[in-house]
Amino acid sequence: MLPPWRSPLSSAIHHNRSKPHSRYFQLATVNPQGNPANRTVVFRGFLEDKCSTIKIITDARSSKIEDIAHKSKSEICWYFTKTREQFRINGSLRLVTFVEADLELQKARKITWHNLSDSARSQFAWPDPACPVADESAFEVELLDPNLPLDNFCLLLLIPHQVDHLQLKGNPQQRCIYRLEKNCSWSSERVNP
Amino acid sequence: MLPPWRSPLSSAIHHNRSKPHSRYFQLATVNPQGNPANRTVVFRGFLEDKCSTIKIITDARSSKIEDIAHKSKSEICWYFTKTREQFRINGSLRLVTFVEADLELQKARKITWHNLSDSARSQFAWPDPACPVADESAFEVELLDPNLPLDNFCLLLLIPHQVDHLQLKGNPQQRCIYRLEKNCSWSSERVNP
Repeated sequence: MLPPWRSPLSSAIHHNRSKPHSRYFQLATVNPQGNPANRTVVFRGFLEDKCSTIKIITDARSSKIEDIAHKSKSEICWYFTKTREQFRINGSLRLVTFVEADLELQKARKITWHNLSDSARSQFAWPDPACPVADESAFEVELLDPNLPLDNFCLLLLIPHQVDHLQLKGNPQQRCIYRLEKNCSWSSERVNP
Repeated sequence: MLPPWRSPLSSAIHHNRSKPHSRYFQLATVNPQGNPANRTVVFRGFLEDKCSTIKIITDARSSKIEDIAHKSKSEICWYFTKTREQFRINGSLRLVTFVEADLELQKARKITWHNLSDSARSQFAWPDPACPVADESAFEVELLDPNLPLDNFCLLLLIPHQVDHLQLKGNPQQRCIYRLEKNCSWSSERVNP
């Protein structure tokens, strides 16, 4: 059985599908100094498990890797511009690298690489991110094998623990908080916006 | 003199002005447990000072108040959907409440309240956020005096220390990091995306 927040989230994804930016959300982490970091990432679908784990990808050279090693907790803020609703999805991050031993997760990493566009794949062969800018020619990358992920390509999973759904349309606004309880079931509570 | 990132940011705000959601961004904080929190807030303009301090508003009853009291560091992630560019603005938060002693900041708080729409002001008279949902009638609020901010209305300032500007349009993508140096001047560096 899917968590109860999955249906409103899938509905939002569907109703906002005409806007490509509806598949972008902001991922907050805490860096090793204990300070917040926040960046836009692309939604890569759900792992079809009972938790509705959310798939993201990242480069092993990205600074968020250090953040996640320090603290795995994260909060996604996903705002849908057309339907004017927000999902704040709080949970734990799990990084799946090229040395991942769990065969199911390694398979999910490979499928995700395979499903990327050529240009999305090529970014993993670009020069080191955040380093002084390299010559333009260093960004001219040959086509990469869709069946062979580069070692620095990581699947990043967010396992949701709490989802705060706010709908700005309507007066008053509607807000519902879903929480994963100790017995692995989900509670839901309508709260004031 | 304005910081060097102000011109590209103002340009992005201008070129995306047809989209009302271009004035929304995601604000990440760290809660007292050391975990990340992330929510959408509305850009309320700049304080016209030499730091280009960013204005936000918040309710004193919001959970972000606790986060800020615990740790004032924050990162804004501001993605512009039309021009496809992102500003990650890292800095310190400063809360301006109804007991603020700094007269200039208290004045800025009052002007910000005055400039809100009636419906934005009325939300500060709504029942306590995140509490079990109140009866609909509790959200029917009479018009509030634009010259008299409610006590729970706060101005929230973000004083930028670092700005990471990424432009997804073009190949390769363009990225520039601006840093506030010890002598209060700004450096800028073109880096790999």
